[in-house]
Amino acid sequence: MTNGDLYAYADLLDGDEKQIIERVREFMTDRVAPIADDQWTRAEFPHQLVPEFAKLDVAGLAFRGARSLLTGFVVLEMNRVDPSWGTFFGVHTGLAMGSVARLGSEEQRERWLPRMAQMDKIGAFALTEPTGGSDVAAGLRTTARREGDTWVLNGAKRWIGNATFADYVVVWAKDEGDGQVKGFVVDRGSPGFTATKIENKIALRTVQNADITLENVLVPEENRLAGASSFKDTATILRQTRGGVAWQAVGCMIGAYERALAYSKEREQFGRPIAAFQLVQDLLVRMLGNVTASLGMVVRLAQLQDDGVYRDEHSALAKAFCTARMREAVGWGREIMAGNGIVLDYGMGRFVADSEAIYSYEGTREINTLIVGRAVTGESAFV
Amino acid sequence: MTNGDLYAYADLLDGDEKQIIERVREFMTDRVAPIADDQWTRAEFPHQLVPEFAKLDVAGLAFRGARSLLTGFVVLEMNRVDPSWGTFFGVHTGLAMGSVARLGSEEQRERWLPRMAQMDKIGAFALTEPTGGSDVAAGLRTTARREGDTWVLNGAKRWIGNATFADYVVVWAKDEGDGQVKGFVVDRGSPGFTATKIENKIALRTVQNADITLENVLVPEENRLAGASSFKDTATILRQTRGGVAWQAVGCMIGAYERALAYSKEREQFGRPIAAFQLVQDLLVRMLGNVTASLGMVVRLAQLQDDGVYRDEHSALAKAFCTARMREAVGWGREIMAGNGIVLDYGMGRFVADSEAIYSYEGTREINTLIVGRAVTGESAFV
Amino acid sequence: MTNGDLYAYADLLDGDEKQIIERVREFMTDRVAPIADDQWTRAEFPHQLVPEFAKLDVAGLAFRGARSLLTGFVVLEMNRVDPSWGTFFGVHTGLAMGSVARLGSEEQRERWLPRMAQMDKIGAFALTEPTGGSDVAAGLRTTARREGDTWVLNGAKRWIGNATFADYVVVWAKDEGDGQVKGFVVDRGSPGFTATKIENKIALRTVQNADITLENVLVPEENRLAGASSFKDTATILRQTRGGVAWQAVGCMIGAYERALAYSKEREQFGRPIAAFQLVQDLLVRMLGNVTASLGMVVRLAQLQDDGVYRDEHSALAKAFCTARMREAVGWGREIMAGNGIVLDYGMGRFVADSEAIYSYEGTREINTLIVGRAVTGESAFV
Amino acid sequence: MTNGDLYAYADLLDGDEKQIIERVREFMTDRVAPIADDQWTRAEFPHQLVPEFAKLDVAGLAFRGARSLLTGFVVLEMNRVDPSWGTFFGVHTGLAMGSVARLGSEEQRERWLPRMAQMDKIGAFALTEPTGGSDVAAGLRTTARREGDTWVLNGAKRWIGNATFADYVVVWAKDEGDGQVKGFVVDRGSPGFTATKIENKIALRTVQNADITLENVLVPEENRLAGASSFKDTATILRQTRGGVAWQAVGCMIGAYERALAYSKEREQFGRPIAAFQLVQDLLVRMLGNVTASLGMVVRLAQLQDDGVYRDEHSALAKAFCTARMREAVGWGREIMAGNGIVLDYGMGRFVADSEAIYSYEGTREINTLIVGRAVTGESAFV
Repeated sequence: MTNGDLYAYADLLDGDEKQIIERVREFMTDRVAPIADDQWTRAEFPHQLVPEFAKLDVAGLAFRGARSLLTGFVVLEMNRVDPSWGTFFGVHTGLAMGSVARLGSEEQRERWLPRMAQMDKIGAFALTEPTGGSDVAAGLRTTARREGDTWVLNGAKRWIGNATFADYVVVWAKDEGDGQVKGFVVDRGSPGFTATKIENKIALRTVQNADITLENVLVPEENRLAGASSFKDTATILRQTRGGVAWQAVGCMIGAYERALAYSKEREQFGRPIAAFQLVQDLLVRMLGNVTASLGMVVRLAQLQDDGVYRDEHSALAKAFCTARMREAVGWGREIMAGNGIVLDYGMGRFVADSEAIYSYEGTREINTLIVGRAVTGESAFV
Repeated sequence: MTNGDLYAYADLLDGDEKQIIERVREFMTDRVAPIADDQWTRAEFPHQLVPEFAKLDVAGLAFRGARSLLTGFVVLEMNRVDPSWGTFFGVHTGLAMGSVARLGSEEQRERWLPRMAQMDKIGAFALTEPTGGSDVAAGLRTTARREGDTWVLNGAKRWIGNATFADYVVVWAKDEGDGQVKGFVVDRGSPGFTATKIENKIALRTVQNADITLENVLVPEENRLAGASSFKDTATILRQTRGGVAWQAVGCMIGAYERALAYSKEREQFGRPIAAFQLVQDLLVRMLGNVTASLGMVVRLAQLQDDGVYRDEHSALAKAFCTARMREAVGWGREIMAGNGIVLDYGMGRFVADSEAIYSYEGTREINTLIVGRAVTGESAFV
Repeated sequence: MTNGDLYAYADLLDGDEKQIIERVREFMTDRVAPIADDQWTRAEFPHQLVPEFAKLDVAGLAFRGARSLLTGFVVLEMNRVDPSWGTFFGVHTGLAMGSVARLGSEEQRERWLPRMAQMDKIGAFALTEPTGGSDVAAGLRTTARREGDTWVLNGAKRWIGNATFADYVVVWAKDEGDGQVKGFVVDRGSPGFTATKIENKIALRTVQNADITLENVLVPEENRLAGASSFKDTATILRQTRGGVAWQAVGCMIGAYERALAYSKEREQFGRPIAAFQLVQDLLVRMLGNVTASLGMVVRLAQLQDDGVYRDEHSALAKAFCTARMREAVGWGREIMAGNGIVLDYGMGRFVADSEAIYSYEGTREINTLIVGRAVTGESAFV
Repeated sequence: MTNGDLYAYADLLDGDEKQIIERVREFMTDRVAPIADDQWTRAEFPHQLVPEFAKLDVAGLAFRGARSLLTGFVVLEMNRVDPSWGTFFGVHTGLAMGSVARLGSEEQRERWLPRMAQMDKIGAFALTEPTGGSDVAAGLRTTARREGDTWVLNGAKRWIGNATFADYVVVWAKDEGDGQVKGFVVDRGSPGFTATKIENKIALRTVQNADITLENVLVPEENRLAGASSFKDTATILRQTRGGVAWQAVGCMIGAYERALAYSKEREQFGRPIAAFQLVQDLLVRMLGNVTASLGMVVRLAQLQDDGVYRDEHSALAKAFCTARMREAVGWGREIMAGNGIVLDYGMGRFVADSEAIYSYEGTREINTLIVGRAVTGESAFV
C-alpha cells in the first residue's frame, strides 16, 4: 500500500499476490525509474531491461488463471512509475497475447503464448488505420485475400505500438471474400511489411509507435486467428484492454499524486512547506479524490470481469471516467510544482505529457461515451 | 439493482439485506414519492408516515449489528426518492441515536435506544451555532454549568434538523468547569428550551431545521452522555455521519440520473427521443460516471468501517468528493430537462435544490478538504 | 460602478446614460429588493410596482435610439437585484415590444408601442410549445387559418412568461395556407384563449409563466405582424433577446458576487473574517473572473449590435458562455455562504435557483452551441 | 481578423496598427512556423531569425508611444504561431526593456533602449531564485554590496529566460546596506556570472532558460537602475508583463482553436468531417467561448493601461483567468485531434505543452488569485 491508496484497496490482494506486486514495484523503482526520463527524451525503448523484467513472470498472467485484481494492480504499479513501460506491456500482453489467448485455437495458443509469456517474443496489435480511429469497424480498409492456404494482406496501419521491433504483429483486415474482419499474426520480417517509427511525439515517447504498410504480405492460413470471424470478436479484445487502460490511468495519477505530495512537503515558500497552504491542500485533496474514486472503479471492474458479467459499457465507462480524472489530476500535480513541473527532473513532466496519450488511445472519451450511451439509452448516436 | 447501478454494487448485499432494501424502496416509492413534492412545497414534515416507516425497522440498524454496507444502501434508497426524508432519518438515526449508542452508558443506551429504534421517540443533534459552523470545536459558545446533579445550559444553536418536534435533542455545550465539550440529552418541552423553525429555505424544505435558544435549561446529570468527555468524542460521531452523507449524495444523484435517463427516452425533439443526441448522451454518461465512482467509494468506505480501520480522512474525502460529484450530476440532469427541470412535477427540481444543502452540511467541502489535507500532509491549514 | 465591475466597464457609459442606470439601480434597491424574497416565496408578481417603474421610462429604449450598451446595463442592474423582475422586463420589452418594433408595420408600431413603452399595456411572447423547445422551428404545431380578414388560431403554448396578465400576447403559428410561421398579436380576453399559470417552479417564481391553449381564437388581419413572413423573421427577435439574456446572466452573477463578497467580510470563523482564508478568496476570485470576462463579452456584443454587424452566432455564443459562467459563479457564491446560502434571507438563494432558469431559456446551452458550431464549421449538427 | 476572432476585436485597431499586425503575422507564418517544431524538438533558439524580425520594429513599441492595444495584438500574433518566440520577445521587451524604460534614468534609457529596440542587444530579467518563486519579494537571497562606485553581487537565479545569450541581464538583488531590492544591468561575460541552460524541459523548449550563479560579480553604480529603490518598483514591471502574459495566453489558445477547427473540417470519420458531430462542435464552441471572453478581457485591460488606471489586481485577474481558460482550451483542441494531437506535425502538440509553462510563469494561478483576493477583500491571505 502506498501513499496514494488512502482506502487501502491493495489490502484486497492476498499474500501471494502482494508479493508479485512487491516485485513489480521493486523492478520499476530500481530498474525503470532511474532511466525513464533519459529513454523518454531520446525516444528509445530500453530493450536491455526486458530479460530481467521477463523473470517477474507477469506477462499474460490473466491467461494463466490470475485474478483480474492482480493483473490490474500489476498494470497500476508499472504506470505509477512509467506509463511508457506500462503501454509497452499493455500492447504486448493485453492486445497481442490477449488476441491469441481469446481468439486463437488451442494449437495457436500453444504455439505462441509460452514464448510471449517468457517475453522471448514480443507482440503488437495493428487495428487503427490512418483514416480510421473511432470508426475503425466500418471504415477498415486493410484487406485480406485468400489464395489457397495463404492470405494476401494489403493496407496501412497507424499508431501501432511496439511495431518497430515486435516479433508478432496481430493485423486486422477485411476478408475480401466474406467482408468480415479477421485477425492475422504477421511474423517480423515478412516481405512487404514495413513499420516506420512515428517521430515527434510529445507523449509516451519511449513507446515505439509505427506507421505500417502492408504490400502483398503473405500470411499462412495457420496464422489466421481461428476464433476471429467478425469485428465483434475484435471488440471483445478491446473490452478487456480498455479496462486495462483505466488501470493505467489510475497508476499514472497515483504516480503524479505521490510526487506532488512529496514535493509539497519539501518545497518551502513564505517560510513553510507549501503543503501547509490551503490552496495547495485543495489541489492535493482533489487529486486524491480522483485517485480514490478511480481506483475503486477499476477494482470493481476487476470483480465484474472475474464474475464473468463484464460488458462493453463497463470498461468504456471506466476508460472514459478514469482517464478524464487522470488528466485533471496530473494537471493539478503540475500546478503544484509550478515551473519545476515542466522539467523532467522533478518526476512530474512525463505524467503530464503521457496522460494525453492515455486519454485518447483505445477509444477516445467521445467514443467510449457513445458506447455507454448506447447501452443505457438503447439509442445509437455514433453517426 | 436499479438503472443507476451499472456496476451492480447492490449484488454485494446478501439475500436478507436485499429484502430489507426492497422494503425500503417500496415504502419510498409507494408512500413518500407521491407526496414528496407537496410536502416540500408546503415545507411541512409528513409525520403521518412515521408509524408505517417504523415498521421497516431500519432505525439504528448499525447499532444492532448490521453491516455498514446495508445501512449505506438503506440511506441511498431513501435519498434516491427524497433527500428530505433521508436527512430526517440521518439526523435521527446517525446523529442522535449514534450519539447515544457510541457515547452513552449501558444504562443510557437501554433507556433511550429501543424507543428511538421503534421511532416512538425522535432525536435531534444540536452542535452548530449561529456563529460557528466550520470552527464549531474551538468556537463553541453554548455553556453547561454543573450545579449538584443538575446542569444548567445556556446558549444558541442553529440549523438543528428535526428540532421543532424531536423528543430528545442531543445538545453539545462547553462545561464551564473543565472547559471540555460535553453532550446532554434534552427532553422536549424542557423549560427555557425554544426551537424556532427556519423559514425561507430553498432546499430540503421538508426538513424542519430550527434555531434553538437555551436559557437556563436544566438537565439532570443522568442525561449527560457518559462517554463524551471532550470534542474528540463528538468528532467520532461526525466521522460516522459524514460517511452517511456521502451515501445520501450517491442516492440523490442516482435518483437524478434515473429520472434524467427516463425523461431523455420519452422527450422527443427533431423527431426522435433526445436520448439519441450526442450532447444528451454526453450528459447522461458524465452523470453515470459520477454515480458509479461515488458508489464505489462509499461501498469501500463501508468495508473500512466494518473492518474497524476507518479514519476521519476516509469519511471526509468521501463526503467532499461524492457531494461535489452529486452537485455536478444533478446540474447535468436538470440541463437535460431544460425548462421542465425547474418545475417539481418532473421529479428533478427537488434534487437540484436539495443537493445544495447536502453539499454544505456536516462539514463544507472546504473543511473536509482541510481534514484530509492535514492527514496526508501532516500540516494543519485550518487557520 | 459597483464592486463587481473591477474593469470599470460602466465607465463606457456617458453621463446621461449613467443617470438612467443610477435611477434603475435606485428603484431596484429601494422598491424591488425589500419585497423580492416575499414575492418569490408566494410566487406572485408585484403589479403594484409597475406604475412607478414605468416612470423610469426604460421600456423599449432600444427602439427609441438608445445604445445597446445602455439597454444592456439596464438589464444588468435589474438582474443584479432580481432576475424575476429582469425576466418580466425582458419578456415585455425584448420579446413582445421587440416583435412589434422589428416586425410590425409603421401603423402597428404606432398602435402598440407607445402604450407598451409607458407600460400601460404589458406584452408576452408565445413561441415555445409543450412538445417543442429546441426544435420549435420545424416542430411548430400551433396553426393559423385565414378566413377573410380574420385568422383562426389553434394550438398550445408552454412556458409563456407574463401570459397570465399580459394585454398583448404575440403568438407564433403556422399558416395552414403557405406553411410559413407568422406572428399574431392576441388581445387579452380573446375568446378561446386560456392561460394557466405554471405552478411548482423552483426558479424565477415571481415570473408568471403560463400554459396557453388556443381554441379557435379569432385574430383580425390587422393584428398579424406585417413583417413576419417566415420563421427567419422570428429568429431575428431571438438573436436580439439572446444577447439580453447574456446581460441577465451577467447581472445575476454580479449580484451573487457582491453578496458573497460582503458576506465573506462579515462572517467570522476561527477568529477572523472568512474573506481572509485562501479557499474563500479562491472562490471569490473565480467568481470575479467569470463576471469580468462575461461583462466584457456582452459589452462587445453591444458594440457589434450598434455597428450593425451582429449575427446569430454572436448572441448564441454569449448566451451559452455567460449563462454557463453564471451558473458556476452563483454555485461558488452559495458555497461561500454554506448553510446560509440556502435560506432566502442572505440574498443568495434566489440567484442560485433563478440561474437554473436563465441557463435554459431562450435556447439551451446545447442549442446555442449548435448554432455557433454551424456558423464556424459550416456543418449543421442539430439532427 | 482571423477565424478565432469571432467578435472582431481586431477591428478596434486603426489602419496603421493593422499593417503592423499584418507584418508580424506574415513573419510568424513565413519564417517562424516552418521551423518552429524543429527548433522546439532540438531545444535551440533560432538566432538566425532575429535580424529579419528586428526590421519589423516592434521591440519596445510600448515605450515609443504605441497603444497597449497594438502591443497586445503584436504579442497575440506571435503566440498564435509560437509561444516560445512569444516568450523570448516578452522577456526581451516586456521584462528587460520594460525595466530600463520604467526604472532607468534618462541617461540609462538612452544608453540601452535604442540598441535593444533594434535587437542588436538582447535582454533578460533575473528575479526568480531556486528557493523563491511565489515569495520572491520577502525571500530574495541574492545580495548586492556597495563598495565605492561598484556593487558586488552574489547569489543564484533560476528559470531566467534568454539568459544563456542575453547581452544585458537585469538582476534583482537585496542591498546589504538598506535591505531594499535594487536592479542591476549585468553585462554579458561579466566575471563571476554563469548561466547554465536548463535541460529536460517539456514546454517552451525553444526558450533558453538558465540557472544563474553570481559570484562576486562587479557592477558599476551607473548600471544600477536609478528608479528602482524597493521591491515595489520591481512589482510595477510585473504588473505590466502579467498583462502581456494574458495576451500570450490568448494567442496560444487562438492558435490551438484555429488548428482544431481546420483539422475538424478535414478529418473524416463515419463518412463525414468530424466537425459535423455534436461532440466535436461542443469542444470547438467551448474553445471559442474561452477565446472570445479572454480576448475581451485583455482588450479592456489595454484600455485601462492607456487610461492610466491600471492596477495590480487588473493584470493579476487577467493572467489567472486567461491562462486557466487557455489550458482548458488547448486540452479540448488536443482532444479533438486524438492521437494526432500528440505529434508535433499536426500543429497542436506544442500548444499543449507550452501552455503549461505560460500557466505558471509570472505568478502562478495561486499567487495571482491572492493578489486579486487581497485587493477585493482587503485581507491578505498569502501566509
